[in-house]
Amino acid sequence: MNRQDYFSDRARGMKRSVIRELLKLTAKPGIISFAGGLPAPATFPVDYVEAAVGSVIENEHATALQYGPTEGDARLREDLALIMRTDGTKTSPDHILVTTASQQGLDLISKIFLNPGDTCITGSPTYLGGLQAFKSYQGVPVGVELDDHGMIPEKLQETIKRLEGEGRRPRFIYIIPDFQNPAGVTIPESRRKIILEIARKGEYLIVEDTPYRQLRYSGESQPTFQSMAPDMVISLYTFSKIMLPGFRLGWACGPNWLIDKMVMAKQAVDLCTPPFNQAITHAMLVNGALEKGLENTIEHYSNKRTIMLECLEKEFADIPEVKWTKPEGGLFLWLTLPDRMSADDLFQNAIDENVAYVPGSAFFPKNDDFQSMRLNFSYASEEQIAEGVKRLARVVRTNI
Amino acid sequence: MNRQDYFSDRARGMKRSVIRELLKLTAKPGIISFAGGLPAPATFPVDYVEAAVGSVIENEHATALQYGPTEGDARLREDLALIMRTDGTKTSPDHILVTTASQQGLDLISKIFLNPGDTCITGSPTYLGGLQAFKSYQGVPVGVELDDHGMIPEKLQETIKRLEGEGRRPRFIYIIPDFQNPAGVTIPESRRKIILEIARKGEYLIVEDTPYRQLRYSGESQPTFQSMAPDMVISLYTFSKIMLPGFRLGWACGPNWLIDKMVMAKQAVDLCTPPFNQAITHAMLVNGALEKGLENTIEHYSNKRTIMLECLEKEFADIPEVKWTKPEGGLFLWLTLPDRMSADDLFQNAIDENVAYVPGSAFFPKNDDFQSMRLNFSYASEEQIAEGVKRLARVVRTNI
Repeated sequence: MNRQDYFSDRARGMKRSVIRELLKLTAKPGIISFAGGLPAPATFPVDYVEAAVGSVIENEHATALQYGPTEGDARLREDLALIMRTDGTKTSPDHILVTTASQQGLDLISKIFLNPGDTCITGSPTYLGGLQAFKSYQGVPVGVELDDHGMIPEKLQETIKRLEGEGRRPRFIYIIPDFQNPAGVTIPESRRKIILEIARKGEYLIVEDTPYRQLRYSGESQPTFQSMAPDMVISLYTFSKIMLPGFRLGWACGPNWLIDKMVMAKQAVDLCTPPFNQAITHAMLVNGALEKGLENTIEHYSNKRTIMLECLEKEFADIPEVKWTKPEGGLFLWLTLPDRMSADDLFQNAIDENVAYVPGSAFFPKNDDFQSMRLNFSYASEEQIAEGVKRLARVVRTNI
Repeated sequence: MNRQDYFSDRARGMKRSVIRELLKLTAKPGIISFAGGLPAPATFPVDYVEAAVGSVIENEHATALQYGPTEGDARLREDLALIMRTDGTKTSPDHILVTTASQQGLDLISKIFLNPGDTCITGSPTYLGGLQAFKSYQGVPVGVELDDHGMIPEKLQETIKRLEGEGRRPRFIYIIPDFQNPAGVTIPESRRKIILEIARKGEYLIVEDTPYRQLRYSGESQPTFQSMAPDMVISLYTFSKIMLPGFRLGWACGPNWLIDKMVMAKQAVDLCTPPFNQAITHAMLVNGALEKGLENTIEHYSNKRTIMLECLEKEFADIPEVKWTKPEGGLFLWLTLPDRMSADDLFQNAIDENVAYVPGSAFFPKNDDFQSMRLNFSYASEEQIAEGVKRLARVVRTNI
């Protein structure tokens, strides 16, 4: 039998993540990488981890090292509901499922909603891990254009109408409302309302993915979709960007009937998220690790963002056709090259100049837009940012 | 829109785990439960955890708290290959994928192999979590009868022939060769060879699930399927039963072309298994936690197994129609009631008498066999085992 014959249809379509393969190229010495999406280790609240681990091992090892409930540690679910309430989203622990970080949230969403061939709506561009999750169940993500304020409601309406007309009603609308990955843009409240109206009229569910929400450096916090329409929104959160990624801990919040189905799906997927990690995180939260850690993280990233924006202004002053977004938070900005220049084509030149980025095409459901690139400002040092942007401008200038 | 209309076909078929729902009933005070499958907290190597965590936080927090490679921590993969080599299975780290415990192994297997409606072969009875994983992708598990030496090769051959005749070629053969859950039986080497011959002739892959393999209390270790046919076997392991479950850490081992596909699938599922837990486990293994922990665990469970077998002999002496398996390891034995008695029907009486078990029907692909029950001997104390078996015999006697 041919090897391919052993695989399911969905597995035959699976590919290694473009970004993960790219990142291997950026491992060469001397390179300054704006390609990854890694948080800076300097922001990890190590002291809080140490204190929490000590207390968990001393006081609750018998439960923390045992299996736990699929829904998650009851104390942690209380903590998570409180985090959300403090952020203006009224909810309670029974609306919350602890997940093995938010990528698992995307996997569970895909599993419970998508039949092969089903469409779902995403931003265009959008988070690559979302696209991977949807496609891994043979879902068909259909992109809706963004502008500087996120997903454009008129385009959303058009796309829904078109898909419905074709008998391909989308299963849900996937939105990253705050400091979107990769574009760095945020949807203002007024636009959130319009999007919700469109969704409500068509009885669509919204999947709100908001891993960076707490990382705001300027401007005003916008209300979550969850707070505006708790009956039709599933929200995905993670500690990966706001505390640390190494625990693989996140959560989903939504209407009971949807969370219930996600719990059933999760039972077959991994039984439960590591109880050890949940117990540690609970102890850290009790000690105030999130608030105090966030203060530090926000200051750290805010400075880096400012430096990258200043460097871009300076280094690209002589190439006014180059544009970029000005994110109010998060980890990424989105740089668009002059017409007819391709960030894919430029990539090897950049590597040769010892600077790396992710070509924007990776983030489009159809991989059909080559003019932009994603720049990460959270991982490189301030000096590296200055030098890296200089190198990038040189690459653009010589290839224009 | 009707709520059901939002779900995918596979989600509509999902149910809460029967066992998890049963376990809620067994939470009443005074009950002695043989129903769960939990390891005894007394076996957790807490001192090793404490030492390892300390060293990880001090020496490698920047990587342990960060994202990690999807394949797993390179050092841990070396450790796992060594564990397998020590057990007589030649392999190397590039054949190993670290998983978020072995339930994720089952999820990934199902995802890469099963199209909706596809059959796969399992024991009858078999592990409930396996059935759940296969069904969650609309796979159709087809059971093959076991005897005291595990899956019966003649029945396997018959079933394959029948399914092939119906144009329903099974996608893989799922086997729990050592101290099977739920039956407690082990396949001897000679029978493993026959099963492998059948599989090789039909070009079938074997999924070898062996969570209890290191927990042998008597008899001789039998070679793994992986060691006998590394080109056609994927083996799933977990630390849950041999060290502790709270880290959710396991691994898969198999041919590169299959492990590669599982890596791709895992990228979309959870990006990586918690690097923190992997780093701690690596440090524990370096310190000898597995060998020393296993000595302790084996002694602990071996005593409990002996006590349960002795109590069964004694308490059921007057009901010779009741039979049970004599496991050489693992956590479970399988008790079969006299003809026409149903373990499902008996369950409520048992609860009323303050003793609990899992009715065997939960473990059959077709839920069509009601005469047996699974008894766990790892969790209850020795005194509880004696008292619980006495209660169980009383329930059987009064309902015979």
